[in-house]
Amino acid sequence: MSIPKAIILLSGGLDSATCMAIAKEKGFECYGLSFNYDQRLSSEIEAAKKICMHQNSKEHRIVSIGIGQFGGSALTDNNIEVPTDPTEGIPITYVPARNTVFLSMALGWAEVLGARDIFIGANSVDYSGYPDCRAEFLESFERTANLGTKAGVSGDHFHIHAPLLNLTKAQIIQEGIRLGVDYGMTISCYSASEEGLACGRCDSCRFRAKGFENAGVPDPTPYQELQSA
Amino acid sequence: MSIPKAIILLSGGLDSATCMAIAKEKGFECYGLSFNYDQRLSSEIEAAKKICMHQNSKEHRIVSIGIGQFGGSALTDNNIEVPTDPTEGIPITYVPARNTVFLSMALGWAEVLGARDIFIGANSVDYSGYPDCRAEFLESFERTANLGTKAGVSGDHFHIHAPLLNLTKAQIIQEGIRLGVDYGMTISCYSASEEGLACGRCDSCRFRAKGFENAGVPDPTPYQELQSA
Repeated sequence: MSIPKAIILLSGGLDSATCMAIAKEKGFECYGLSFNYDQRLSSEIEAAKKICMHQNSKEHRIVSIGIGQFGGSALTDNNIEVPTDPTEGIPITYVPARNTVFLSMALGWAEVLGARDIFIGANSVDYSGYPDCRAEFLESFERTANLGTKAGVSGDHFHIHAPLLNLTKAQIIQEGIRLGVDYGMTISCYSASEEGLACGRCDSCRFRAKGFENAGVPDPTPYQELQSA
Repeated sequence: MSIPKAIILLSGGLDSATCMAIAKEKGFECYGLSFNYDQRLSSEIEAAKKICMHQNSKEHRIVSIGIGQFGGSALTDNNIEVPTDPTEGIPITYVPARNTVFLSMALGWAEVLGARDIFIGANSVDYSGYPDCRAEFLESFERTANLGTKAGVSGDHFHIHAPLLNLTKAQIIQEGIRLGVDYGMTISCYSASEEGLACGRCDSCRFRAKGFENAGVPDPTPYQELQSA
C-alpha cells in the first residue's frame, strides 16, 4: 500500500510546525503549502522552509496570492498598526476570509496531487477570536470541498484535519516537543523583524510566551531587544 | 440610502458579462473581479476589462493567483491538450477547486469593501459538468462564508448569487441582449488566440454557438479561420 499524502498549511509559526509533526506521526507523507500574500513578514516564509527541511516534508510549495491588495487587516495593510494591547472581540489582525482562501488553494493542489487530507493548525483555545479557526467553519468547509470537486462528488472524500483545535498553547508545545519540533525555527510574531526576531508584545507573542511558561519548557524564541518604556 | 455593492466574478466570457448586467439591473453598484491564474488566455483578461468599462463597473480588480502551478487541467497546464470532441463525465478542462478559490477571494474583498453580495455566472444547464457549478455547492459555500468571516458571524450575511444557474445558453443570451450586453467583447473559447479569436471547436465554443443559434441572435464571435481537415 502506498503512503497517503497530506497537505499541511504552513505559516512558519509554532502551531503549523506542530501540525506537520502530527501529520507525519499519523503516517502521512507531508506536502507543505505556504502563501506569500503581501504579509509583512518574509521571515515567516523562511521559517516555513526550515520547518519543511527539518521535518523531511516531501515538497514545499510557496504560492503567491494577491489578497494583500484588499487590505482591511493589520497583517496585510501597512497603514494599520499591529496592536500591542489585548482587544475585545475579533481583532484588527483578522485577515478577511484568510483560512477560506488558504484551504481552497490547498484543496486545488490536493486534488491534483491525489492527497485527500489537509491539515491546518487552527486553534480555538488560546487564539485571537478568529471566526475561521472554529470547528463549525472547518466542518462546513469540508462539506463544501466535497460538493465542489471532481474527487469529492465521486465519493473520494477530502478530510480537513485540525488536530490542535481544542488544545491549549501549552499542550501544543508539549506535543511538539514529544515529536521533536524545533521551535527555535518557528516565528509566531505579528511584527517580527526582517531577521525573524519577535517583538514580544503582540497578541501572538503573548500567547506563545505564556504557552512555553505553562508547558514548563524554555522559550527558544529570538526576541528583539525590548525598548525601555 | 446608499447603493448596495456587489462583487461580480468576471472571466471575460458570455456568462459573467451577462451576470454583471443582471446585478446592475438589480440595483447593485458593480465591482468586477478577475483572476490571472496562468491560464492560457491573456485575451480573457482584456475582455473582462472591456466589459467593466462598457458596463460602467465602479472598479475592476485583477488578482494573480498561482493555482496554475498545481496543474491538472487543460486550462492551466500546457502539457494537456484542450479536447475538441465532446467527452463523458467531468472533462479535463475542469480546474481543481477553481470556483472555491475564486469565491474565497471574492469573499475576502467583499468583507473589506462592505459588499455582502457576490455574483457568479455558474450555469448547470448548458455546461461542461463541473461540480462547482451546482446549486448544492454554491449553497454550501455561502454557509461556509457566513461561518468563517467577521461579518458573517456578526449576522451581517453574505449572499452568493448565481442568476444564470438554471438558464439555457439561449436564455442567457436573450437576457443579455435585453440588458444591452455587447457579446462581441466577450471570449468563451478555451483555446482562443492571443488576439482573442475563438477556435470554434472546443466545448465552450460549441455551447456558445448553439446558444446564439437557439436564441435567434446573430453570433458576433470573432472566429479563427478554420483549417481545412
